[in-house]
Amino acid sequence: MANELLRGLPIDHVALAVRNTDDALRLYVDTLGMEASPTEVAADENLKVTFLTGANARIEILEPLPGDSAVARFLEKRGEGVHHVCFVVPDLPATLERLRVAGYQLVDEQPRQNFHSRWLAFVHPKSTNGVMIELYQRT
Amino acid sequence: MANELLRGLPIDHVALAVRNTDDALRLYVDTLGMEASPTEVAADENLKVTFLTGANARIEILEPLPGDSAVARFLEKRGEGVHHVCFVVPDLPATLERLRVAGYQLVDEQPRQNFHSRWLAFVHPKSTNGVMIELYQRT
Repeated sequence: MANELLRGLPIDHVALAVRNTDDALRLYVDTLGMEASPTEVAADENLKVTFLTGANARIEILEPLPGDSAVARFLEKRGEGVHHVCFVVPDLPATLERLRVAGYQLVDEQPRQNFHSRWLAFVHPKSTNGVMIELYQRT
Repeated sequence: MANELLRGLPIDHVALAVRNTDDALRLYVDTLGMEASPTEVAADENLKVTFLTGANARIEILEPLPGDSAVARFLEKRGEGVHHVCFVVPDLPATLERLRVAGYQLVDEQPRQNFHSRWLAFVHPKSTNGVMIELYQRT
């Protein structure tokens, strides 16, 4: 496994935008047998967040709380579906600089911390084949 | 890691529908440093397929060949983005039966083989929060 870890970017999670977390849990937990962590509120993003533990990567369920949020706007525009894919990189500032130089459009020009104090940055889907990419700093 | 593997469903790959494979490779290989397997043609699906090796899961790049295909229709309707997420299950027929009983809409009522002779089935995104799910039989 050690060599594997050097060979490519680990996927930390695939995030889904949903209207109702319980509906998604009925599928992933009750029917497919994944385990859910307790649902948390990300107050600064006006979201409910629930992580599902997979064997090698996680699923993140994002449900907007009432009012405005990036995920509410995503649902309005695109409907339910995959919201972003998160990779873990060894050196986030260096990766952001490489993306910037290569012409990719960054949502976050500099790493910022989420509500779990994890350093992250998003890349805009306009420049990445329609896929919003989140990058986590390896801890 | 052994315990991890028992705890939830492994993600085998996240598949992206793109208009141009080379564009996607410029991001994932040239800029982010993933490794690409040789591009293959899935003739029965009228597609070019390129797998990128991640540390724990793969990215599958799907580009339609000229003419009609499911992925061409997806691009027409939704634009580029995540096409499906593939999980590995220990007993595919049993999982399909559980999904059917729970009311989920199966694209494939029975497992079928892909061009690598791998047994798989798709679940329709209408019933799964907008996410097309592919299930692989564990080999």
